[in-house]
Amino acid sequence: MNGFELDSRLVKDCYVLGKLNVSFLLLMNNSLVPWFILVPQTSEAEISDLSKVDQAGLLKEINVLSAFVKSSFDITKLNVAAIGNIVSQLHIHVVGRNPSDYCWPNVVWGTVERKPYSDKRVEEITKALCKQLGDRFLPC
Amino acid sequence: MNGFELDSRLVKDCYVLGKLNVSFLLLMNNSLVPWFILVPQTSEAEISDLSKVDQAGLLKEINVLSAFVKSSFDITKLNVAAIGNIVSQLHIHVVGRNPSDYCWPNVVWGTVERKPYSDKRVEEITKALCKQLGDRFLPC
Repeated sequence: MNGFELDSRLVKDCYVLGKLNVSFLLLMNNSLVPWFILVPQTSEAEISDLSKVDQAGLLKEINVLSAFVKSSFDITKLNVAAIGNIVSQLHIHVVGRNPSDYCWPNVVWGTVERKPYSDKRVEEITKALCKQLGDRFLPC
Repeated sequence: MNGFELDSRLVKDCYVLGKLNVSFLLLMNNSLVPWFILVPQTSEAEISDLSKVDQAGLLKEINVLSAFVKSSFDITKLNVAAIGNIVSQLHIHVVGRNPSDYCWPNVVWGTVERKPYSDKRVEEITKALCKQLGDRFLPC
């Protein structure tokens, strides 16, 4: 999609790690949980309004990201959600959860506790993404 | 899937409205927002662990249910989420939201305020589902 711009709130709260085929891949700057966000390049606000092709592409990216989070972090459950009550630009949270994490069993949305990443740790995560996703992932 | 049983907590909190091809369709007994739940007949706990066929079937059901919620209730946003931190059986929330609703812009998960449905209203919703979804929906 030409002229697509990431929402400024997402850019403020997250590291923009790179691009997949349909979506930008962001990392919420909160190392308390592995909290990734897919932002499909679309002006639609709902998954159900995407074209069938984009839906299928997005689903693939959710699968690939889910596998990455499961294999790279100590988590027991994934939380996958499209909410958008505050930031209306369509974005899908893929969050790895663990009974020992900071807000289990509550959801992460609405929590204010944060522990920012070091640049070094973000670099490590980006490298791990490159290794696991290969040419499906184009880092920024 | 033979021998599939709905989680007892879901059954306690919701009306079981009927079945789609992949999923049971439930209605959270909270009329403050239109809050539906799809429960795919599977023992997997994550969407990403479903077969490609079941994923595609589930996505269709999310689309159909999203369209129903958008056309039948006064809502401006959908919240679509697979969480499962408390009830591990895979289930996908499809919640219609509106800036005037009881917890906007916060998420509904974790809120305790409830307004139960009347049986008559549940019957109306079930009839509307039958009308819009046709033979894709088998009411209980």
